[in-house]
Amino acid sequence: MSTRIEKDFLGEKELPDSAYYGVQTLRGKENFHITGIPMSNEPYFVKAFGYVKKAAALANRDLGVLDAKIANAIVSACDRLIAGEMCDQFVTDFIQGGAGTSTNMNANEVIANLALEHLGHKKGEYQYCNPNDHVNFGQSTNDVYPTAFRLALILRLNSYMDALGQLQEAFFAKGREFQNVLKMGRTHLQDAVPMSLGQEFHGWGTTMGEEVQRIAEVRQFLHEVNLGATAIGTMVTAAPGYPELAIKYLSEVTGCTFILAGDLVEATSDTGAYVLLSGVLKRTSSKLTKICNDLRLLASGPRCGFNELNLPQMQPGSSIMPGKVNPVIPEVVNQTSFLVIGLDLTVTLAASAGQLQLNVMEPVITFALFTSISTMENAVNSLNVNCVQGITANVEHMHSRVLNSLGIITVLKPSLGYKLCGEIAREGYESGKSLHDIVVKERKLMTQQRWDEMFSFENLISPKFEQ
Amino acid sequence: MSTRIEKDFLGEKELPDSAYYGVQTLRGKENFHITGIPMSNEPYFVKAFGYVKKAAALANRDLGVLDAKIANAIVSACDRLIAGEMCDQFVTDFIQGGAGTSTNMNANEVIANLALEHLGHKKGEYQYCNPNDHVNFGQSTNDVYPTAFRLALILRLNSYMDALGQLQEAFFAKGREFQNVLKMGRTHLQDAVPMSLGQEFHGWGTTMGEEVQRIAEVRQFLHEVNLGATAIGTMVTAAPGYPELAIKYLSEVTGCTFILAGDLVEATSDTGAYVLLSGVLKRTSSKLTKICNDLRLLASGPRCGFNELNLPQMQPGSSIMPGKVNPVIPEVVNQTSFLVIGLDLTVTLAASAGQLQLNVMEPVITFALFTSISTMENAVNSLNVNCVQGITANVEHMHSRVLNSLGIITVLKPSLGYKLCGEIAREGYESGKSLHDIVVKERKLMTQQRWDEMFSFENLISPKFEQ
Amino acid sequence: MSTRIEKDFLGEKELPDSAYYGVQTLRGKENFHITGIPMSNEPYFVKAFGYVKKAAALANRDLGVLDAKIANAIVSACDRLIAGEMCDQFVTDFIQGGAGTSTNMNANEVIANLALEHLGHKKGEYQYCNPNDHVNFGQSTNDVYPTAFRLALILRLNSYMDALGQLQEAFFAKGREFQNVLKMGRTHLQDAVPMSLGQEFHGWGTTMGEEVQRIAEVRQFLHEVNLGATAIGTMVTAAPGYPELAIKYLSEVTGCTFILAGDLVEATSDTGAYVLLSGVLKRTSSKLTKICNDLRLLASGPRCGFNELNLPQMQPGSSIMPGKVNPVIPEVVNQTSFLVIGLDLTVTLAASAGQLQLNVMEPVITFALFTSISTMENAVNSLNVNCVQGITANVEHMHSRVLNSLGIITVLKPSLGYKLCGEIAREGYESGKSLHDIVVKERKLMTQQRWDEMFSFENLISPKFEQ
Amino acid sequence: MSTRIEKDFLGEKELPDSAYYGVQTLRGKENFHITGIPMSNEPYFVKAFGYVKKAAALANRDLGVLDAKIANAIVSACDRLIAGEMCDQFVTDFIQGGAGTSTNMNANEVIANLALEHLGHKKGEYQYCNPNDHVNFGQSTNDVYPTAFRLALILRLNSYMDALGQLQEAFFAKGREFQNVLKMGRTHLQDAVPMSLGQEFHGWGTTMGEEVQRIAEVRQFLHEVNLGATAIGTMVTAAPGYPELAIKYLSEVTGCTFILAGDLVEATSDTGAYVLLSGVLKRTSSKLTKICNDLRLLASGPRCGFNELNLPQMQPGSSIMPGKVNPVIPEVVNQTSFLVIGLDLTVTLAASAGQLQLNVMEPVITFALFTSISTMENAVNSLNVNCVQGITANVEHMHSRVLNSLGIITVLKPSLGYKLCGEIAREGYESGKSLHDIVVKERKLMTQQRWDEMFSFENLISPKFEQ
Repeated sequence: MSTRIEKDFLGEKELPDSAYYGVQTLRGKENFHITGIPMSNEPYFVKAFGYVKKAAALANRDLGVLDAKIANAIVSACDRLIAGEMCDQFVTDFIQGGAGTSTNMNANEVIANLALEHLGHKKGEYQYCNPNDHVNFGQSTNDVYPTAFRLALILRLNSYMDALGQLQEAFFAKGREFQNVLKMGRTHLQDAVPMSLGQEFHGWGTTMGEEVQRIAEVRQFLHEVNLGATAIGTMVTAAPGYPELAIKYLSEVTGCTFILAGDLVEATSDTGAYVLLSGVLKRTSSKLTKICNDLRLLASGPRCGFNELNLPQMQPGSSIMPGKVNPVIPEVVNQTSFLVIGLDLTVTLAASAGQLQLNVMEPVITFALFTSISTMENAVNSLNVNCVQGITANVEHMHSRVLNSLGIITVLKPSLGYKLCGEIAREGYESGKSLHDIVVKERKLMTQQRWDEMFSFENLISPKFEQ
Repeated sequence: MSTRIEKDFLGEKELPDSAYYGVQTLRGKENFHITGIPMSNEPYFVKAFGYVKKAAALANRDLGVLDAKIANAIVSACDRLIAGEMCDQFVTDFIQGGAGTSTNMNANEVIANLALEHLGHKKGEYQYCNPNDHVNFGQSTNDVYPTAFRLALILRLNSYMDALGQLQEAFFAKGREFQNVLKMGRTHLQDAVPMSLGQEFHGWGTTMGEEVQRIAEVRQFLHEVNLGATAIGTMVTAAPGYPELAIKYLSEVTGCTFILAGDLVEATSDTGAYVLLSGVLKRTSSKLTKICNDLRLLASGPRCGFNELNLPQMQPGSSIMPGKVNPVIPEVVNQTSFLVIGLDLTVTLAASAGQLQLNVMEPVITFALFTSISTMENAVNSLNVNCVQGITANVEHMHSRVLNSLGIITVLKPSLGYKLCGEIAREGYESGKSLHDIVVKERKLMTQQRWDEMFSFENLISPKFEQ
Repeated sequence: MSTRIEKDFLGEKELPDSAYYGVQTLRGKENFHITGIPMSNEPYFVKAFGYVKKAAALANRDLGVLDAKIANAIVSACDRLIAGEMCDQFVTDFIQGGAGTSTNMNANEVIANLALEHLGHKKGEYQYCNPNDHVNFGQSTNDVYPTAFRLALILRLNSYMDALGQLQEAFFAKGREFQNVLKMGRTHLQDAVPMSLGQEFHGWGTTMGEEVQRIAEVRQFLHEVNLGATAIGTMVTAAPGYPELAIKYLSEVTGCTFILAGDLVEATSDTGAYVLLSGVLKRTSSKLTKICNDLRLLASGPRCGFNELNLPQMQPGSSIMPGKVNPVIPEVVNQTSFLVIGLDLTVTLAASAGQLQLNVMEPVITFALFTSISTMENAVNSLNVNCVQGITANVEHMHSRVLNSLGIITVLKPSLGYKLCGEIAREGYESGKSLHDIVVKERKLMTQQRWDEMFSFENLISPKFEQ
Repeated sequence: MSTRIEKDFLGEKELPDSAYYGVQTLRGKENFHITGIPMSNEPYFVKAFGYVKKAAALANRDLGVLDAKIANAIVSACDRLIAGEMCDQFVTDFIQGGAGTSTNMNANEVIANLALEHLGHKKGEYQYCNPNDHVNFGQSTNDVYPTAFRLALILRLNSYMDALGQLQEAFFAKGREFQNVLKMGRTHLQDAVPMSLGQEFHGWGTTMGEEVQRIAEVRQFLHEVNLGATAIGTMVTAAPGYPELAIKYLSEVTGCTFILAGDLVEATSDTGAYVLLSGVLKRTSSKLTKICNDLRLLASGPRCGFNELNLPQMQPGSSIMPGKVNPVIPEVVNQTSFLVIGLDLTVTLAASAGQLQLNVMEPVITFALFTSISTMENAVNSLNVNCVQGITANVEHMHSRVLNSLGIITVLKPSLGYKLCGEIAREGYESGKSLHDIVVKERKLMTQQRWDEMFSFENLISPKFEQ
């Protein structure tokens, strides 16, 4: 394998000649063997660096502080990253010290070497296009890395929000399908009053829809960036007018509108937008925990449980009990929720650990957020396709359970009075008899016809108000 | 002590005749001895029940389902709660089973007995005004309790947001005071490039201001309530038109606009708004953690630390070392932040534990949120008054530190070139000499006059861009 | 009200003459209005200061560095604290800056003034017995406060462990009562194989018993203290031999054996023992979460749920539905668990925030741990007395459910073979028929007598192994 | 590519003929695309399944319930897993529904097909050696999966504890190297009293050593397993004597002593041992957070910080500031700590979510614990090798800082008295003068010789006690 030598102020390193990354990337790779997962595991993160470096180069070219020929070569290199190429050259671990410097230098070096080839030079001939002096011109890790991170999050959230939206739709579709299925509503896990199964599914859809809206709201804060702040927010080394122009270009090339933070010193050490986003991801997880617990509970049985719902059978559940099938999809969503809630704590801890003009803990935030979003997106898609869409209801069973319950005594309160209803309910509770038997057959308090009116689906779902 | 007997379907209990609460409150008090802190520890919570029960009585009166004379007596009783009376009668523990039923019944019983007295009856003569049949008419704990909770939060947040806003102003005022104080900016705790102390304080103000805005945004979700949903969101037992009318009255009597949730089944089991609010409280805590860490670090010393800031001396710090004073106010804010972050987890856990048509864990959410907001409000006020407003800066020390640093070599890069600057910086690092000595005295690379221009406050804070 | 003036190096303060605390306590009280809960809310904490200050005085007397007459007066004062007096004089907020200095000074001042009265002097005549020079002789907040905290935890844990032990016994008693009650065992909430209800209760007892053991193990680490370390672990200002002698006396007067930490510098900044203890409290909470979820699930119904258990009826559950009773005790234990898990995070955050030679965040750890232990102790006692001891089982219902289930096909596998059993199970699943009907009545695969043998309680609980 | 067809009771699937796994593994792989990380990412987990399945086969062979020829073929297959082969055949995602059934079936299928080849049959000819009937004989996922998990943890913890032990040694070595280096001890970040730098490093070593001990203690609980409990702890389908014999074999083949849990019903749903282990990992993380914060603080500067320590320079820190180097290794350890603390919450949530006879959330616990241990092991090794071992001290600077401080006035208190010392300290604080100048030069309170005795290294580190 042929190699080349590169050096920085700490000394020389040997690189495989095929590598587009350089000496600083290699140091980062060697220094940070933590998760074993390179940042290119999130392809949008690589693309985002392509976009940001392209916008910077265009701005610096227009401002006359970067030679147009070099700038254009950099732009050309960035376009390859944007097109999805070169992921294998982004080798630095997600979790790293240095606040993302290794990742920024990884981008600078790969882009420089691609630009060099574009200009007809060899990799490593940095006198023609230098990772620091040209690709990173007027930039610092401290503004470039968070800007690229935010852009990557925006892109990644699109597909996550789609997944949630489709789950919402699946719940709504089942809500319509089950709108006339009667069931017992429960509070405190105790039989309460009747409702329709459609209302329950519709509620799950509503609550997922709220999550899409909340994400859309907090995503707005990701559009506010500190590009041009450079090291600490004082714009040192950036050309006058650069921040505004770079952000204008970034908006153009990505098709997303970005705005410059109003207080660049604050913005450079602040990670509050990630905390908000993570908080919403956590909220979605807490809701999915509840929904999947409900699904598993309503599908419990088949003989010794609630037995209201049948979930699609995905795999044999047991090697001992023939025919046992488990609710494996809701279970895996539950577990993914636990992961996301745990990683939200990681984000909070990292955000709390900022010091003075920078928060150097941002890399672990990138790991936590990308892991949370992508695993939850997978889980949500699975819940939709492999579970919700195929759910069927045990309509007869649910209906008979309602009619056999004591909770429906509430329906008779207006006509029979509170005190008599109380006596009847207690007799039912103690004897195990059905209300129908006590009221119609034994006590003959009403005719079968009147009973049937009172206990029709419509009157059970929304009882006529009587006083 | 004279007593009276009350009973419910589980039997009789003896009450002191002075008690406005009744048998169900007493059961709740006996059943739930957990924190020892009654819910009236948050006076807005009691007031909020007054407002909600008043709105319900007015709506039921207008709809003709509640006798006007009784309704008016209830309204009169509610007005006393709203005026701040009767807090000592709200004796149920913050944390309770039953999803707040004990607290709701506590309100129902106190209001009923006040109404009875208003009507010329004795406490306990519930045939004239019954806690369940009249005060709680068309209501369930499951809609009344969360509505009162949300209203109480809205009221409580007002003073919390004021406290944050005043802290923001204090930071801004110091930002103006210190705008011409030069200091070293630091990243990774390493000397980076100069900035003004005013920029640092302004940044803290900016970031606090963002918290006020975020709270205002999530507070909006508290204005959406499920009043009228009753037990599970199907409005069972509520008169037609009640939800809309009750909410109209609630808006009127409180002066806050409330809206009815679009999906009452979802809204009755959902606690997502609390998770969002708690998430923002947590975010504020993570920011205050960072700010207080910064304050303590910048005030470290006096001889062996950063020694940039002097915090007001609040109390002797040590019985051993004469004159030692510690940064006790930032320390207590740090600790309060840890409490709030912990309680955010409590909220998340409780929110995740909803089941089917209700989340019965809401009482612990009330405890967590009210504790978080009130302790943090106390801490923020203390930080403002007892610390930030009295901070002074060691101007000379900070200035000489900057000029003695190596980070300012960056200023010379345009005129002397990157390579020579690197050599000079290394000589300074290895020899301990100042840059001034090396550049002006030894190497005579520039005149003292030129040096003074380059290292003026203006040029250090915002260096002229040169290439 | 008559008053006296006291001063420290920050100036003078006026105190009510009835106050046994002095100027520094008053500053602490004024500086830290955070939770509003004084540290004397945990009476063991006050007692513990009495013990520690007594041990210190005795050691200093023996070493000849503290006048015997003064020392004896201090001892006499400490004995009053130990006897439970003076709690109202301990007024500093649980959460405070200064690493507990205000609390330590509160103890020093109260003890000094009690000693002064004992010696025939007036409060405030500190020339005869000084809070710093005599009561705090050879001590620092940094060794005294954690030592008193550890002692108070040890005392508090005794009653907590008793509560857990009694809950364990209650579960075991029910385990014996229900040992012959057949029920369906469930995994994934799906019917699995039969078991006895006694096994289930016994399992809950076993798991509680493990918690008592784990607490006993981590409690050992609380017996290792840094008394004598003074400010940073170098024993500055302590007389030679003091640490060992003070610890000997502390062991004697408390009846608990204490040992001196091996590395006093490490021990003075370390809070690891609290993290371990909190971790075990969290573990207990996670187990109680599971147990209470199980209890609520098994008691779900009465008609539309599992309906296996009846929990004692503690209070009416609903104002709408006559006769509805909710599982309020397990619910409140669930919520207390969420609080404890949240406070464990607070402890972790505070423990992580130590810096250099001290962790100044220890006060919030005291608040978190005492709150966790006392609320959980209350909750556990309530679970035992108000719930577990009164649980009854629906024996017939559970038995018929098992016989009606498909899971018991497993019992027939050895005699009928896997393939035929699979067919029968599927027929049952699809037709809703019982296995008995299919096997005995329709297919006549075995006699009723053979069936009865196979499906006896003994064979269902522990099937004879056949191949 | 040639393929084969396999089927289970849900239908047929096509498999590549090269695959050793079978139809159920394939279903699991398709159903659970969550993290994208297969469980074989932790090689010890695969080996552990080899050990457990081998022990089971040997026990069943001895008990005469498994044909010896088949048993021996299974043992032979297991030995290949133990030898580290076949990792690429373990393709199921770490996070999965079904409580690990897919992973257990993955092991059963790979072992069955290896055994088939060993016996001269083709893959898929399960009539000769069946994944369920032979490899999984007398077993359930519910006992095999946790047993294998525990064994894998024990193996993994060995190298983690080694890493911590080596870090401890590195701190102790530096402690010895720096034992005579004087420095200022600090509490509240304020100058307190002098100490030696060696004491500080020794303290870090001590605290790491405690972690190794705590891990060793909680690891004991992993040796208690439920092998033989089968589905719910009633040992259904296991041959009499199997649990004891299987555990005896497991101890033999692994060289670790395992014991059978005393209450198998409890043990089958309990995940408490993981909570304890995770709690200790969290504690270690909170300690490493503190240590790395200290290292970064003590290395702050070089000119505007504490500047006591020099950390090895690992990579250029900035593209803007020539020569800037950042403490990247402690920073990455900080971030890894945040990850571990977050994942501890994931473990707690999963452990709390057990229901009735099983905790189906165990797979996410495996993911969380293996990720925590392996990332932290990497981080700890890096901290040791890339940071601690190469730390140097700025001895002169630290010494002059101590002598220039005001904290050392404490040394003069015995000879000059508290009041005069207070005056001198205040003069120093207000004038900025050194104590030496005030005491020796200006006030001539002692001779230079006496001063030198008092402020010798020995007397500063452990002052002679005087009164």
